[in-house]
Amino acid sequence: MRNLISIKDLLRDDIELLIKKSLSMKNKGIKQSEKQIKIASLFFENSTRTRVSFETAAQNLGHYINGFSGIEGTSVKKGEPLIDTLKMFEGYGYQLIHMRHNLEGSSRYASDNCQCNIVNGGDGSNSHPTQTLIDLMTIKEKKGKLENIKIALIGDLKYGRTVHSLLQAMECFNSKIFLVSPESLAMSEWRKKDYSSKTGNELIISNNLNEVIKELDVLYVTRIQRERFPEGLEGDIEYKKVSGSYNINPELLQQAKNDLLILHPLPRYKFNMEISMDINQLDQCGYYDQATNGRFMRAAIIECLLNKKLNGKTREPNNNPQLWQSLSIKHGTKKGERMIYRLDNGTLIDHIEHNRGDLVRSLLGINSQEGPILVASGIRSKTYGRKDVLAIHNVSLSPEQSYMLGLISDQATVNIIQTQKVVRKGKVGLPDVIDNLVQCQNMRCISRPEHYEFATNKFYVESREPLKIRCHYCEHPMERSEITKALMG
Amino acid sequence: MRNLISIKDLLRDDIELLIKKSLSMKNKGIKQSEKQIKIASLFFENSTRTRVSFETAAQNLGHYINGFSGIEGTSVKKGEPLIDTLKMFEGYGYQLIHMRHNLEGSSRYASDNCQCNIVNGGDGSNSHPTQTLIDLMTIKEKKGKLENIKIALIGDLKYGRTVHSLLQAMECFNSKIFLVSPESLAMSEWRKKDYSSKTGNELIISNNLNEVIKELDVLYVTRIQRERFPEGLEGDIEYKKVSGSYNINPELLQQAKNDLLILHPLPRYKFNMEISMDINQLDQCGYYDQATNGRFMRAAIIECLLNKKLNGKTREPNNNPQLWQSLSIKHGTKKGERMIYRLDNGTLIDHIEHNRGDLVRSLLGINSQEGPILVASGIRSKTYGRKDVLAIHNVSLSPEQSYMLGLISDQATVNIIQTQKVVRKGKVGLPDVIDNLVQCQNMRCISRPEHYEFATNKFYVESREPLKIRCHYCEHPMERSEITKALMG
Amino acid sequence: MRNLISIKDLLRDDIELLIKKSLSMKNKGIKQSEKQIKIASLFFENSTRTRVSFETAAQNLGHYINGFSGIEGTSVKKGEPLIDTLKMFEGYGYQLIHMRHNLEGSSRYASDNCQCNIVNGGDGSNSHPTQTLIDLMTIKEKKGKLENIKIALIGDLKYGRTVHSLLQAMECFNSKIFLVSPESLAMSEWRKKDYSSKTGNELIISNNLNEVIKELDVLYVTRIQRERFPEGLEGDIEYKKVSGSYNINPELLQQAKNDLLILHPLPRYKFNMEISMDINQLDQCGYYDQATNGRFMRAAIIECLLNKKLNGKTREPNNNPQLWQSLSIKHGTKKGERMIYRLDNGTLIDHIEHNRGDLVRSLLGINSQEGPILVASGIRSKTYGRKDVLAIHNVSLSPEQSYMLGLISDQATVNIIQTQKVVRKGKVGLPDVIDNLVQCQNMRCISRPEHYEFATNKFYVESREPLKIRCHYCEHPMERSEITKALMG
Repeated sequence: MRNLISIKDLLRDDIELLIKKSLSMKNKGIKQSEKQIKIASLFFENSTRTRVSFETAAQNLGHYINGFSGIEGTSVKKGEPLIDTLKMFEGYGYQLIHMRHNLEGSSRYASDNCQCNIVNGGDGSNSHPTQTLIDLMTIKEKKGKLENIKIALIGDLKYGRTVHSLLQAMECFNSKIFLVSPESLAMSEWRKKDYSSKTGNELIISNNLNEVIKELDVLYVTRIQRERFPEGLEGDIEYKKVSGSYNINPELLQQAKNDLLILHPLPRYKFNMEISMDINQLDQCGYYDQATNGRFMRAAIIECLLNKKLNGKTREPNNNPQLWQSLSIKHGTKKGERMIYRLDNGTLIDHIEHNRGDLVRSLLGINSQEGPILVASGIRSKTYGRKDVLAIHNVSLSPEQSYMLGLISDQATVNIIQTQKVVRKGKVGLPDVIDNLVQCQNMRCISRPEHYEFATNKFYVESREPLKIRCHYCEHPMERSEITKALMG
Repeated sequence: MRNLISIKDLLRDDIELLIKKSLSMKNKGIKQSEKQIKIASLFFENSTRTRVSFETAAQNLGHYINGFSGIEGTSVKKGEPLIDTLKMFEGYGYQLIHMRHNLEGSSRYASDNCQCNIVNGGDGSNSHPTQTLIDLMTIKEKKGKLENIKIALIGDLKYGRTVHSLLQAMECFNSKIFLVSPESLAMSEWRKKDYSSKTGNELIISNNLNEVIKELDVLYVTRIQRERFPEGLEGDIEYKKVSGSYNINPELLQQAKNDLLILHPLPRYKFNMEISMDINQLDQCGYYDQATNGRFMRAAIIECLLNKKLNGKTREPNNNPQLWQSLSIKHGTKKGERMIYRLDNGTLIDHIEHNRGDLVRSLLGINSQEGPILVASGIRSKTYGRKDVLAIHNVSLSPEQSYMLGLISDQATVNIIQTQKVVRKGKVGLPDVIDNLVQCQNMRCISRPEHYEFATNKFYVESREPLKIRCHYCEHPMERSEITKALMG
Repeated sequence: MRNLISIKDLLRDDIELLIKKSLSMKNKGIKQSEKQIKIASLFFENSTRTRVSFETAAQNLGHYINGFSGIEGTSVKKGEPLIDTLKMFEGYGYQLIHMRHNLEGSSRYASDNCQCNIVNGGDGSNSHPTQTLIDLMTIKEKKGKLENIKIALIGDLKYGRTVHSLLQAMECFNSKIFLVSPESLAMSEWRKKDYSSKTGNELIISNNLNEVIKELDVLYVTRIQRERFPEGLEGDIEYKKVSGSYNINPELLQQAKNDLLILHPLPRYKFNMEISMDINQLDQCGYYDQATNGRFMRAAIIECLLNKKLNGKTREPNNNPQLWQSLSIKHGTKKGERMIYRLDNGTLIDHIEHNRGDLVRSLLGINSQEGPILVASGIRSKTYGRKDVLAIHNVSLSPEQSYMLGLISDQATVNIIQTQKVVRKGKVGLPDVIDNLVQCQNMRCISRPEHYEFATNKFYVESREPLKIRCHYCEHPMERSEITKALMG
């Protein structure tokens, strides 16, 4: 494994190796690496902790670091595309890039376009895998275990990247998880569904910390982040509604277990403290340990990536996806419809959902250069009531057109017609990877054209029935209804 | 001595040792330190000179440095409390922290909460001890001595932290000091009083440089700092009134001694130069030497702190402060007042200043849970004319309540009453340190709640008669009248 | 040669040595320098590429680097003059300063006032010599030669500093150069004239890339830079008019030679790409090689400067400039004029252009302290029609006054008169260097008083007939008409 982009790329063994190695470094100190390299530390968004702990770790290992912290004073301010910035560091001989960027999926995109080892130091609201590894390290250190833990994630679960990655990591460890947040900052449905479908465990949802605090082993607090709300007055108002929703203080802790571990990725927000200052001195305070552990975990990550110690999950491609499902040819000709249209040679797309014929035609990008195209709408069908039909003279569908059809319609059948006979009939299937066909519906995804980063759409087909595809970059899933909406613009 | 927070912490011997060491480094070069450490360079406010000279010194000594310069691109922008930023660097193994912060007393607060060696690189308008050491080093280098010097401090004496520290340092060296400034930027009264009471020397105040220039050995010029005035139009106007008040140029120098030494901590303000460019080439120009000396002095400071070469003043606690001054009990009962109130058991606070009874009650935070409380106002007293009296049933004052009484009133007497008899009578005294009772009246002090830095109020009792206490953080003194005003809100 | 300020300072041999050395470093790696020094990297303007490649090069050579990137967080924000910032780094023992600054001629001014080696990393819109050396290195690497190349410079030729330096460099290499730009961003006339007069080659001007692309060996593309237009709405409008004028894409390339080399100093502007992303993968793409080469060329520059390997052009002073051209004295007295004025002893300036007499008097700064001054206007002259005459009693012109007269007038004659006789008569000449007399008319020049950098005007007299002088700092030339306009204010 060359990069650390998402916690989901790691095997449970990888996580445990990293924790073991980082705890050992904490005990015995960080030794100089055998080979010194150049590391780029690229912070397109604010950071102190992530940046300094990483850079200090790199220095302890003997590596050289350069880069920037915030885009003031850089060419990014001049409108440079991300890829050019990365190519530059690659060209200068930097072997590992540690990056934080406001767009979701930016690190994945970087790893696609750059030979360097990429470490994701936070990509927008999406994920923050190195922080999660630090969190797990701290839980292991303090609780001695990672399973059978009752943990509440509290605060901004919608935009908080650390809780996103932490929830994903907990898929590997059987635990009871509480999600506590104001309603408007709840964890997205798809993230909850991802967790439940992987583990079979239910998440416990609450907006009242008092209800759940008695049970907890670990309380993971996050800051309500002003910078994730829209700029301007409207964002201010939304933010004020929820800022200060929770305040962990000694009084509240009287209801909790004595050995409750309080974590926070920091920074806290001093104008409306989610954890009171007088917690700092208590045994329950784990957030300063987290901060301290950052350096050791990040040193372990650098070492393990450079020495290829992490195996990582390999995406198992379905080498033989069924791209064509043959159907039996009943009559050899399509009699009834002959009243309406005639097709000697070409492709007949039948059973298109009613009133979608025009859409299909336009999305397939078919033009009448090779011969006439006919859209028949509202044809009566035994199976589907009314349907649309598309007759395309002299043309076979390209693979891209087939995949597009498979994305739009789950009932359409394709008839290949030669000299007025149906020589082949069937439904089109989808490959494992869909390139450059659908736009990701997550507006913060790096692949959105409005960000001008030129990342080509790419989705993995995760399930064919019902259809579910997942963005290669930001990991957001899309189902049939969203896909259709997206394709219709 | 572990930290360098205020020049007042240093003994004269410490100052002389630092000057000797830094001048020797200037002659012989800076040698690598025996032990390499990690140093944090944390600039919450703009700097080039202080930061770069310190970092270069640290590099010459072989140390590793990380940190930030300006809060753009850091978590401070996200509202992180100072203490969390410091704890983080401590956690990452940084052994020495060099910090500049806009709040006064921030370095002292840091040293209270952090195991690292703290060096104050400027705390708001309060002090800048390392610059002062550089100034003294340059005077010593150029004049061969630090005593019997006629020196004028000129420019912004109100907000200029370098002149504040320099004036404090001059308490150790018998000299004639002129203060020259526009009236609105005069040195604060308390700073002048501090100097005079320590040295017995008078300061010479002027707003006309021409009057005093003939006499001077050293002319210490400072920039009128726009950033210390309020933001916005009003601040602009105030600033424009005084900006450009002084311009040191060759013509002016014709009135001065030939060997006048001109110092300036820099930067100069190019749009309204307080020292003309054509001074740069003259023998009198000492400010570039000051800049150059910065690296050597800061190297000396690092070395001396790490190797514990500085003794520092030790605050001598009055181990036996008189917290209770017994008074003779005349009648055993308080007859006359019995017409007005009756107290069988409890505390009677007598001789409260007229019309202050209610205030005392509220500030002592006494409630009627244990028994009735009675405030008698306007009682005739032989000694004080009219007075107030507070009768508290069944309650003795806690230490905190006693100290509060001592802060509010210097005439009140306390009578402990049992079964209608006065069994003890006296005046309460104050301990050496007063925690968490009064708010510092310096709005720029880190302990002010509006800065959300959670530094608990702390004052040293410097004099009991007349009362004078001094803020632990920003070193501003408060006298009885200010204390009362502060307590009344 | 101690500094690298302008490509025009380099001999062709110097350029070839730097290319050879940098290509050799690219093949064999960069070795540690024999002597380690401290290098300051001072970016008063945004940069990523120039800064990081330089700093990485310096690190590869084993040097220590400090400085700043953007003026946020520095004393420059407080209004510090450039020279004080530089003096500080010099004082701290920095031996080489790599600087980027928005004012034109800033590096030259730095090199005048600082003992450090200065490397110009871009001075406003003026020049960017290190980028040009990288460009030449890349052309040499890809094309095997630097002569007989057909190269188009395209985009913002008015404000683009890289194309300015590249055009100057091409004076050394016989090539065919096309200039392609929107009209409002055309290369300045004087730059074109400089090139043509040095080489005898014509530049080919076009605003249509399609016309010229077939012929090209090298296509050098630049970004239209928003930051060089005025701030605010008007600048926005001007910028929008020309932004996106050119887009290099695969379709356009079909018209080009197969081995066309596409260069771009980067960054590209992602919101309106001047080169499409799909060029990145083509063989023609040379801009990532340029970026990569940056590190090696900048390492070569550091090495060659520190080891004094560059000879540089030496400005050959005309040791014996003719400051006085004697004219024959016809009558010994000036008869006709005696009707109008009388001059017993003093200076008579004759043949002043009509109606310029008062101007000459005021620019010469002559006052009537020593004797009367008489301006006679509209006197009839055989040679010039009407003329003005200036009679100055009892005064001879100082050298500065003579030079000023030489700048204002090319026809005035000076008569030295003693006891009513003309004892000497002639025209004044100009020295090679003119100090502190004329203001540079380039508003972005560091010598302009509105920038408050205190750089004294300085011009080289490049030609006396017709008069042409060139600014020492920004290299802009001025001819007689501009000089007169400048002097008249």
